[in-house]
Amino acid sequence: MELKDLRNASAWNTEEMELNISVDCVLFTIRDHKLKVLLNRPFPELDYLLPGDFVRTGEDADAAAIRILYQRTGVDHIYLKQFMTFTDPGRFSYATMFRRLGMEQQLMEEQPILPERVISIGYFALVNSELIQPTGGDFQEETTWSDTGHLPELHFDHAQIIHGATEALRRELYFKPVLYNLLPEKFTMPELQNLYEIILGKSLDRGSFQRKMLRWDIFERLEERKTGVAHKRPFLYRFNREKYETALRQGIHFAM
Amino acid sequence: MELKDLRNASAWNTEEMELNISVDCVLFTIRDHKLKVLLNRPFPELDYLLPGDFVRTGEDADAAAIRILYQRTGVDHIYLKQFMTFTDPGRFSYATMFRRLGMEQQLMEEQPILPERVISIGYFALVNSELIQPTGGDFQEETTWSDTGHLPELHFDHAQIIHGATEALRRELYFKPVLYNLLPEKFTMPELQNLYEIILGKSLDRGSFQRKMLRWDIFERLEERKTGVAHKRPFLYRFNREKYETALRQGIHFAM
Repeated sequence: MELKDLRNASAWNTEEMELNISVDCVLFTIRDHKLKVLLNRPFPELDYLLPGDFVRTGEDADAAAIRILYQRTGVDHIYLKQFMTFTDPGRFSYATMFRRLGMEQQLMEEQPILPERVISIGYFALVNSELIQPTGGDFQEETTWSDTGHLPELHFDHAQIIHGATEALRRELYFKPVLYNLLPEKFTMPELQNLYEIILGKSLDRGSFQRKMLRWDIFERLEERKTGVAHKRPFLYRFNREKYETALRQGIHFAM
Repeated sequence: MELKDLRNASAWNTEEMELNISVDCVLFTIRDHKLKVLLNRPFPELDYLLPGDFVRTGEDADAAAIRILYQRTGVDHIYLKQFMTFTDPGRFSYATMFRRLGMEQQLMEEQPILPERVISIGYFALVNSELIQPTGGDFQEETTWSDTGHLPELHFDHAQIIHGATEALRRELYFKPVLYNLLPEKFTMPELQNLYEIILGKSLDRGSFQRKMLRWDIFERLEERKTGVAHKRPFLYRFNREKYETALRQGIHFAM
């Protein structure tokens, strides 16, 4: 059951879902040199929302997040990470939502089984927005990539969830090569550094950045250099797929 | 309602708690140069368990974790961090637990309201075991500090929760000065390094460690040096309380 299906009674099968446990996905991308997130607005009456859904019976939260990501982007096998669970008793109210949607009748009927509190387990992922077409179905025209620095009005605590996901993504950069999905097959160290700078929101020292990256030992330097750039022609790199997969699984600890 | 109160009908007030949302706390300490966690065993029929409880109505998960920590240790104002939520549909079963406790009758009565799945929101904290006396009430004699490298048989997915908490603690060391609670007021860099080495489970380069620590700018070097040590007399340090508090709140990012 997704929020957009609320008015579709057949999709509202409360026996197949955990009515008080949802998953929200913060899908990041980089566009126009900015860190952006995918938002949607299932109903004109509501503000923007993160893609999310209830956890289904027999499904764990990871599976729910993978399902949501796949539904919205058509991609799977993307690095997706649980980062925090949001549990404030006042964060979400079925009653408020039903009323805003003018569904007083349904609210009266459902109220006995609706829990007071719905928690949300937050996930984030990095996707290359050039390679996907967000498939929102009914509400496709309302799907948007929004600059994390200038978010529109969001429902519930979704602004807080995005803030938490941004912090978690920044930390993740120190331990895992999560930017793979955003890079072309061959890339230069300045291109990689540029992605880090956009996400971290600060400039990095070039020499120090390259030393640290290369110490991770997941890149292969190619014989070619980048062409078509003004002055220096930087080396091209690509991921060593095997070492990259290991690093993604096991993590890479910075030397303390 | 705690697990230990299961047999105490008056404590089993299902209206005041979220029957499918629990919090488990991994309380770490360092003893005998090992990283240990607090475990308890409320019933002889059961294996060891992490301190945990259900989230109460009107209480968020942070408040539940603070309550559990306070109940078990008598301390509050300790750095406590949510690190992951465990949602496997098979991770916990009321039916199995009631049966193992020989409570078939109560199981029959309660079954209609018992959820199939109970999720657990995991928290970790670092406590100085010399300063606290775990207050387990009825099961005090069953409370134990267990070496994370040699855990006893644990119920449910509690071994997995401890593993996840250990990974999260190791990461936290890179961003926040979480070891404060384990240090005496004045300490040496080798003492601090020793704590890091125990938690990370590896040796660290002394010069590099000290350079990075001092770059955090949260320590004050005192005029005194450590006495009573064999050869070199290392400088003593203490935390600059104000800078420490800021660092704990805002985090410290390693230079990338």
